[in-house]
Amino acid sequence: MRRIMLRISYDGTDFCGWQLQDNEVTVESELNKALSAITGEEIRVIGASRTDSGVHAEGAVCVFDTDSRIPAEKFRYAVNTGLPDTIRVWESVEVEDTFHPRHCDSEKTYEYHIWNNDFDNPLISRYAHFIYRKMDVEAMDRAAQYLLGEHDFKSFCSPKADVLTTVREITAISVRRDDRDERNVTIRVSGKGFLYNMVRIIAGTLIEVGTGLRTVESVKDTLEACNREAAGPTAPAKGLVLKGIVFKNALKCEENR
Amino acid sequence: MRRIMLRISYDGTDFCGWQLQDNEVTVESELNKALSAITGEEIRVIGASRTDSGVHAEGAVCVFDTDSRIPAEKFRYAVNTGLPDTIRVWESVEVEDTFHPRHCDSEKTYEYHIWNNDFDNPLISRYAHFIYRKMDVEAMDRAAQYLLGEHDFKSFCSPKADVLTTVREITAISVRRDDRDERNVTIRVSGKGFLYNMVRIIAGTLIEVGTGLRTVESVKDTLEACNREAAGPTAPAKGLVLKGIVFKNALKCEENR
Repeated sequence: MRRIMLRISYDGTDFCGWQLQDNEVTVESELNKALSAITGEEIRVIGASRTDSGVHAEGAVCVFDTDSRIPAEKFRYAVNTGLPDTIRVWESVEVEDTFHPRHCDSEKTYEYHIWNNDFDNPLISRYAHFIYRKMDVEAMDRAAQYLLGEHDFKSFCSPKADVLTTVREITAISVRRDDRDERNVTIRVSGKGFLYNMVRIIAGTLIEVGTGLRTVESVKDTLEACNREAAGPTAPAKGLVLKGIVFKNALKCEENR
Repeated sequence: MRRIMLRISYDGTDFCGWQLQDNEVTVESELNKALSAITGEEIRVIGASRTDSGVHAEGAVCVFDTDSRIPAEKFRYAVNTGLPDTIRVWESVEVEDTFHPRHCDSEKTYEYHIWNNDFDNPLISRYAHFIYRKMDVEAMDRAAQYLLGEHDFKSFCSPKADVLTTVREITAISVRRDDRDERNVTIRVSGKGFLYNMVRIIAGTLIEVGTGLRTVESVKDTLEACNREAAGPTAPAKGLVLKGIVFKNALKCEENR
């Protein structure tokens, strides 16, 4: 039995998110189906990040166990033939059987894309949230820095989440306007783990800062309030993309959390 | 009666091209429907460029005549409410009634987008043609320069075209790899007018140069052959986008061709 790790990009528009659900087409269900077809086994992948319906990924990760004799690096070619065009596996590699994509130490990076212009752009609207009012991106970036480091992010967590602790650590956060095309604004956030809807609530709150609905300093108060109602709205899923996941050691688990 | 000019972006993926066709959803049919609904008149737009099925636009142009009292600059807001999200009007302005988007002197710019990587990217695959083999972009750019200027482009015209002359003028052409993300390659072409499938056949031919299937110099021979079979294949529609149209004088026609 070998454990294989896959790195995957997908357009989340037409999927009910990552996670397996009865009678719904999800990224996980498509991967299980394609991998089961090529191995003749009943494959169930384990994902690193269960993205919501409509969220995209450029560097999602999952593992699966197989007795198949297909060389590890060939899986990426084989599985792509059975996947819809909206999902592409771009790396397949054998890992230690102790490696688990959620329990091993990792850093995830998400980007939230905003199209900030007086009219929406149909060529970008699947992948960016449209904001009409010109945003103060410098203020958004300053406000974002209150979130850097380890904090209780309860204000930035969906009340639907069922977690033991709402303490998380953000290792990097920035808000930038594209210098080539100023209509594109990107919020980029890295951390070891994120709460349910956390990046989208951060985006919704920083957009309120950018459009003048709240002050830069209010974000500090929001964090301290530990109350979801203190934060801004959950920004739409389509603007969010999981850019990548870096594991301390991708081949085996050095440290279980 | 006033003549109004619109500038329009659209995602061509789900349309049967620009031009009105029986029982098909086209960009033109959607614009006619939305404009007729807001004016109460039977509006028929006249487009500058009849893009094919699957081709995108960021700066398409059309005009229509109306007795409506809606201020010209308000049309863009009104018409967007009746259009699908995949079409957005971003400018509306009154023009002289002699102005005609196809008969007046203009320069059109198209871009052809290629994703040049060992795996396709689902987040870009609606808008770029995927080429696996690493292309020699510098060779493509040199080959493209044979096409600059006025030539008989019969080799680069679909045999289905019904035209008086296949002589056209390319005023600018370049092939560039994106310095931020080298996987993106763009062919950019400007000219007064283009033949049916001309930019897509140019793209298909230059891709053959880039992947080593033909030499740089062969493009000169292809042009001189005046034979469609001498050129490369017609590259897929989804990589093509009409970037914009510049009129010598957008308000009236200085010169009828």
